[in-house]
Amino acid sequence: MLLVADNLHIINPVIQKALETLDPGPIQEITERCEAAGADAIDINTGPLSRHPEEKMTFMVETVQSVTNLPILIDTANPKAMEAGLKANKNISIINGFSLEPQKLEKILPLAKKYKSDIIGYLLYPDSRVPNDASERCTLAIQILQAIQDIGMDESQLIIDPIIVPLSWQNGNQQAKEILTFIHNLPDLFGFQVKTIAGLSNLTSGLTSGHENMKKKLLVERTYLPMLASAGLDMVLFNIFHNQTVESAKACVPLISPRIFSWAEL
Amino acid sequence: MLLVADNLHIINPVIQKALETLDPGPIQEITERCEAAGADAIDINTGPLSRHPEEKMTFMVETVQSVTNLPILIDTANPKAMEAGLKANKNISIINGFSLEPQKLEKILPLAKKYKSDIIGYLLYPDSRVPNDASERCTLAIQILQAIQDIGMDESQLIIDPIIVPLSWQNGNQQAKEILTFIHNLPDLFGFQVKTIAGLSNLTSGLTSGHENMKKKLLVERTYLPMLASAGLDMVLFNIFHNQTVESAKACVPLISPRIFSWAEL
Repeated sequence: MLLVADNLHIINPVIQKALETLDPGPIQEITERCEAAGADAIDINTGPLSRHPEEKMTFMVETVQSVTNLPILIDTANPKAMEAGLKANKNISIINGFSLEPQKLEKILPLAKKYKSDIIGYLLYPDSRVPNDASERCTLAIQILQAIQDIGMDESQLIIDPIIVPLSWQNGNQQAKEILTFIHNLPDLFGFQVKTIAGLSNLTSGLTSGHENMKKKLLVERTYLPMLASAGLDMVLFNIFHNQTVESAKACVPLISPRIFSWAEL
Repeated sequence: MLLVADNLHIINPVIQKALETLDPGPIQEITERCEAAGADAIDINTGPLSRHPEEKMTFMVETVQSVTNLPILIDTANPKAMEAGLKANKNISIINGFSLEPQKLEKILPLAKKYKSDIIGYLLYPDSRVPNDASERCTLAIQILQAIQDIGMDESQLIIDPIIVPLSWQNGNQQAKEILTFIHNLPDLFGFQVKTIAGLSNLTSGLTSGHENMKKKLLVERTYLPMLASAGLDMVLFNIFHNQTVESAKACVPLISPRIFSWAEL
């Protein structure tokens, strides 16, 4: 299971300011810390970048790649910013991402073909509603796969995101189970080993702050992670500075790896 | 998922001495601590009790039940000790356990019928060899179920133990995965919701001691636990004084419970 750092997020005021003033220092520093903490890839979430999208995304990608060769995920809904990021990229990049929403099908998906990039497909309805169970996720996954095939891309470029929802939702715990079932059944549904990714922090989003709640949030996240891993999840997106979550992710390896004696490497 | 404390084990010199001298104090104290730590049941593992089996098991069961009403698991291969424990029992007791080993089929299994007790069936070959994969476990589970039916017991009295093996075995990590697959598929195999139990510490047994190894052992155990829980495990046997493992077990509840808002109870 690959660990994707979601730390370069525009919601962080440090990132927001660095991006506004085009100051590479803070972004480089966080990127280096992500790699040191065990990240296998870095998600660059700039938000929509309504002003100067090309300039800002180019700056972000170049800044990150000035200090690391890790794969990057370019995480924006703005097609102009996305294309600028893909152009600026020197290593492996993944488009994060598209859905059945018409705007994304038309403007984002073709970029994956043009730049031969892997792309994350969110299992959401065209109006952005979240599916309710494993069966609805299967239906959406097939439509997403169809979209990939229709545009003439290779199926192996697709990474499915089943969309984790907050446990605090009325059906949150049911959804947590349905997602495991979905990930477990996906290879049989598609008939090949399609890659999967999930955003772990969604599970506890909306939780009010405070020390006790933060402890609870991290505990639940690092408990759900082994469930996702054993269901077959390939990539997990989370705050890589949460040491115990990283520890939990690494401890999954000897439990799900087909390699003998991987236990000794822990 | 019910948490079964394995702390009353003859391997602990304190227990061994208390049992030898028939001193209830230390046993009562550990039992009370187990309940306070969150145990839902207490395993009484006396070993074979070759001398005075009846007297000693009666003492153990009465001593435990003098301070708790929790269900007990009577864990011995000695049929005389087992029967004495079942006679002395005042609350819910579970026989831990039997296998396809002829001695156990003849001497232990009939006690479950006589005392209307639930009984744990170990998935082991008659010569005590451990099965290699999920498929071998299915074959053994069906033979165990057959033995229950042959003796005229109700299927609901059976609790299956798939036998966790050490990760340090050559095929240890493969076995860890196969056990998850087996537990996941068992209700379909049997056609009803058969109960399951597993001994978590088997996963890391044989690990040499030392602080670093203990940290590693606990990390791997509390990482495997959510995998077992999401596969459908009903009862887990472990050292209930390992706080972080208890925490991990409790955090599984909102992730696998069908009840809405169970998250808020964490």
